[in-house]
Amino acid sequence: MNTMDCRPIGVFDSGVGGLTVVRALMDRLPFENIVYFGDTARVPYGVKSVGTIEQFTQQIVEFLLKREVKALIIACNTIAAVAADRVRQMAGGIPVLDVIEAGALAAVEATKTGDIGVIATSTTVNSNAYARAIHHLNPNTRVYSQACPLFVPLVEEGWLDHEVTRLTALEYMKSVLVEDVDTVVLGCTHYPLLKPLLTDVTEGRITLVDSAVTTAEATAQRLAEAGLLNRSRGVPDYHFYVSDIPLRFQTIGERFLGRSMRDLEMVKLG
Amino acid sequence: MNTMDCRPIGVFDSGVGGLTVVRALMDRLPFENIVYFGDTARVPYGVKSVGTIEQFTQQIVEFLLKREVKALIIACNTIAAVAADRVRQMAGGIPVLDVIEAGALAAVEATKTGDIGVIATSTTVNSNAYARAIHHLNPNTRVYSQACPLFVPLVEEGWLDHEVTRLTALEYMKSVLVEDVDTVVLGCTHYPLLKPLLTDVTEGRITLVDSAVTTAEATAQRLAEAGLLNRSRGVPDYHFYVSDIPLRFQTIGERFLGRSMRDLEMVKLG
Repeated sequence: MNTMDCRPIGVFDSGVGGLTVVRALMDRLPFENIVYFGDTARVPYGVKSVGTIEQFTQQIVEFLLKREVKALIIACNTIAAVAADRVRQMAGGIPVLDVIEAGALAAVEATKTGDIGVIATSTTVNSNAYARAIHHLNPNTRVYSQACPLFVPLVEEGWLDHEVTRLTALEYMKSVLVEDVDTVVLGCTHYPLLKPLLTDVTEGRITLVDSAVTTAEATAQRLAEAGLLNRSRGVPDYHFYVSDIPLRFQTIGERFLGRSMRDLEMVKLG
Repeated sequence: MNTMDCRPIGVFDSGVGGLTVVRALMDRLPFENIVYFGDTARVPYGVKSVGTIEQFTQQIVEFLLKREVKALIIACNTIAAVAADRVRQMAGGIPVLDVIEAGALAAVEATKTGDIGVIATSTTVNSNAYARAIHHLNPNTRVYSQACPLFVPLVEEGWLDHEVTRLTALEYMKSVLVEDVDTVVLGCTHYPLLKPLLTDVTEGRITLVDSAVTTAEATAQRLAEAGLLNRSRGVPDYHFYVSDIPLRFQTIGERFLGRSMRDLEMVKLG
């Protein structure tokens, strides 16, 4: 067993949303090196076709594998929904974790009634990936899904507690709440930033599953099992690659990461 | 003078929004062949950096020039704002028209007080391209700009007359209306679909300039001057190329185009 595996964990997303997973990983595994890739030049993926998402994902995974990562974390629900198999094929035996597996597990553990809601982008909802993952873990659950395409732009606009966001949330949540769910999975890495508002809108009666935290926990377990943890106690290296650095990127990124973002570098893919 | 120039007009946009310009062209120049390119795999451009937008634009223009277009129309405000010079350099003498030049001209003609508002994406507003174009035409005007990043996703969600869209419009228009403008340029090709709602929100006191129509008019004039009109009276060919065909694309596209969209083809750039 390698007790000093200081190779980085590779985390990737279509944009900045995956930084919520990086943030949870930094908290849960404070000695691990992390390399992040966000495809900000082509974001968002959630409104694009499966073929295009697979092609973009392949380019990202090739990039990260060249950086000798010891594990890959799909920190994007859309990629996890439609291209997780492709990533596992490419990974060559290193662990691959994804936000959907982790979120589904947390939802199944949280629900008491077995009625689970999932809110996500259109592509994630249409893929049915959450329902499949949840039913695989517990065939006695019922899953109700709702696409919420406006949540990502609302979060990026910073309207986290705005009347417009509240009204939008009420509209989207209506069809989920009518099904009497007791648990709702936040099936997009942008949504954890709306947690306070969504708690409010659902009057605190619903357990909201944030897959960033559950993904970090699953990663810690999987690395420990595989003997891949970095047991050196040095200051970790964090490196952030993106395919574009637009205006306000640093501001938005740091809102997701919850701390300052150094070692940010732009690379072109494709 | 060539009286039978049946080469197509090339129209391009970051996505589907430019189809509003195609629609206006079909009405104004019913005998012209048109080839459209929408970069739906990488849309939206309005939140991306200037360097990235220039690179993507160059790929689109190369693609259209290979299709032997007789004119290029930049039907995307963001591209017009930051990459119009690049397009003109590449065009090799064929006419290049863009929505900003056309919109600026229409605004200057429409205003009585000289106080003009511009609403657009963040990148377009930050480029200051409308203010430059308007001041160039009439230095005595004053221009007030407001970025409206939520309008594109609201239009794509189809919430054209929704309370959420109304509240969002009120919030965005507040800072423009306080400046007592009498004319507002819809500086994004998605916005014409919000014209009824914006007329309502501004209580009909403002002239809303839709650059799709003014761009078609400017194109007609320029082609006539250059002797490039197609004087054959046949049924025109329309060909639509996009870099991705996601779910609901046809529906959304036809909402912009105002008619059915045949000859749709997917091509990969970059």
